Amino acid sequence: MRTLQVDLGERSYPIYIGGGLLAETGEYFERHNLAKKSPLLIVTDEHVGPLYLSKLETSLQNSGYRTISKVVKAGEKSKSLEVFEEIMTTAIEGGLDRHSVVIALGGGVVGDLAGFVAASYMRGVKFVQIPTTILAHDSSVGGKVAVNHRLAKNMIGAFHQPEMVLYDVDTLQTLPERDVRSGLSEMIKHGLIWDKSFTDWCRDQSDKLLDLDPESLVYGLTLGCSIKAQVVSTDEREHGLRAILNLGHTLGHALEATGGYGQFLHGEAISIGMVAAAKIAVNRGRDQSIYLVTKDLFERFGLPTTIPSQMNEDDIIAAMMHDKKFKENQIIYVLPISIGEVEIVNDVTADDVRHVIQELKEEGQHV
Amino acid sequence: MRTLQVDLGERSYPIYIGGGLLAETGEYFERHNLAKKSPLLIVTDEHVGPLYLSKLETSLQNSGYRTISKVVKAGEKSKSLEVFEEIMTTAIEGGLDRHSVVIALGGGVVGDLAGFVAASYMRGVKFVQIPTTILAHDSSVGGKVAVNHRLAKNMIGAFHQPEMVLYDVDTLQTLPERDVRSGLSEMIKHGLIWDKSFTDWCRDQSDKLLDLDPESLVYGLTLGCSIKAQVVSTDEREHGLRAILNLGHTLGHALEATGGYGQFLHGEAISIGMVAAAKIAVNRGRDQSIYLVTKDLFERFGLPTTIPSQMNEDDIIAAMMHDKKFKENQIIYVLPISIGEVEIVNDVTADDVRHVIQELKEEGQHV
Repeated sequence: MRTLQVDLGERSYPIYIGGGLLAETGEYFERHNLAKKSPLLIVTDEHVGPLYLSKLETSLQNSGYRTISKVVKAGEKSKSLEVFEEIMTTAIEGGLDRHSVVIALGGGVVGDLAGFVAASYMRGVKFVQIPTTILAHDSSVGGKVAVNHRLAKNMIGAFHQPEMVLYDVDTLQTLPERDVRSGLSEMIKHGLIWDKSFTDWCRDQSDKLLDLDPESLVYGLTLGCSIKAQVVSTDEREHGLRAILNLGHTLGHALEATGGYGQFLHGEAISIGMVAAAKIAVNRGRDQSIYLVTKDLFERFGLPTTIPSQMNEDDIIAAMMHDKKFKENQIIYVLPISIGEVEIVNDVTADDVRHVIQELKEEGQHV
Repeated sequence: MRTLQVDLGERSYPIYIGGGLLAETGEYFERHNLAKKSPLLIVTDEHVGPLYLSKLETSLQNSGYRTISKVVKAGEKSKSLEVFEEIMTTAIEGGLDRHSVVIALGGGVVGDLAGFVAASYMRGVKFVQIPTTILAHDSSVGGKVAVNHRLAKNMIGAFHQPEMVLYDVDTLQTLPERDVRSGLSEMIKHGLIWDKSFTDWCRDQSDKLLDLDPESLVYGLTLGCSIKAQVVSTDEREHGLRAILNLGHTLGHALEATGGYGQFLHGEAISIGMVAAAKIAVNRGRDQSIYLVTKDLFERFGLPTTIPSQMNEDDIIAAMMHDKKFKENQIIYVLPISIGEVEIVNDVTADDVRHVIQELKEEGQHV
């Protein structure tokens, strides 16, 4: 078991990463002095709930906690204001008070959704994350919580740091293969923006990671979380450096929105986005190897690196225009300088993006 | 013109109170270095919009700002997630970015609603309040923003401090008489919890205040805001002292909820709530004069001090049970010790409240 401290002053919190943690949740809650008189609300989804909810409830109840739970539909579509309101109803009817804790048991969607509930219920209650996906290693660091608006992703949200994160890698063993790949996409991103040696490690370990080897997972998740924690500690509210975490996300979010939040998993969309960012960097004069290495890396993990030919450039660009990464109508773009190092630029034009979309569509047709 | 600084460390902000400020908004925005490249969103309601929106837009546009606006229906019912989502749509379609400012032009409803939009749009943008009611002097200090859930008031929200508050007392001249009385109710509350001499001043000035005498208004609003600012500076996130501001609100919110947020104005409901709190204090052994002075004070301002006989005790108690002021199932109640001084107690029972509801219903039938 590894413990990683996310350093944010009085909002600092630990991430516990290891096996068997779910059954020890009650003890962790006691160790963190979380109130026993107030009911806890567990938010999970219909995939994760049947597998792990009763184990979590049992552990909490054995330590004397009262729990209520809300099971939402799996998938990005639950990150809506409608589902948010349903959870609020459950919370009010269940008698949650200001000392209650909201627990997210699930992946990034459940974490973002339950986190925004915790941030806004009675103007903010405590929050604990129990991620059950690899992808969630990303959202479990940094306190960004949100729901989607039909016009753009993560548009309605808050910064709300958890009390702790309990990362039980045993829960990853039941992940569908596509979700494994999607999750590893964010892990790889953390190498690409910060640490060439971690990128090399990811490539070398691709088979073990895809096979969910526990030791590789604990190491990779700890490194991934640690890189994110270093960035977030420097810039909690995304005024500067934190933007490098958006590598691949400008185009990635637009692909997700254009596909109706159903066609691509998040990790798949940003895989394409990172390959596109590498291509834009090369088109602007960086070494061709950046594109080739990036593309090869994601292909090793079975992640998409091209854009389906039926997707329309104009739709994708329009979705980008609605995205938060626009600052006074300029695109803020994260581009690789080399493997393990990125820069934030503000002079990428819509035409540059349109051009690379066309290139990645053509690339897809050659396969 | 008076300036009051709300002291909250790096979240400190000024409240400007005086005549003619609306037409100078553009200059105040420039003085506060608010971004000109990003569009501003003005949220107002259908009562205030026709009177003051174009004046505000003109002032901002003369200083080089671009504005978009959203006019919502007047009244508490607009403090819903549905209207919140509509405003988010306007914001996204209008191209608001992270440097944009959301402006609340209106009373407490518009302030709370627009404030929660500012708190959650892209996880938080800047917020400026331009109150046009007396009641809003209360909500313009302290950064509490929220929308209602159908089961309870202000259940979904955040703490989000404004950049500044521009309080143009000229806009109060168009207030309907009932809103004037309702607003003065919160002003009187600030005396009752903190300052006997301010309470005496309010009683002595009741005619001038009801006649909207500008000098009395500027003085009373400055004192009211100043008391609230002192309390909030000590306890920004309501861990202790700040709860004294809830004098009259435990029962008041329940009366509003039971009446469907339409029967009582907020100031009317808390007027009854403060009289009820005085009565509970007397029932628990405090001097009878506390009740008599409190009741007389609100009667001078033409505010209600009894409960309509057709309201059901059980409905009111049930609404209270859903309210945030319950902590681990105990009622946290603010009770007067004397005029100008209150205490926070946790041993008021539902039966105590039921009893006082009956007393205030009987009192109403004697009139």
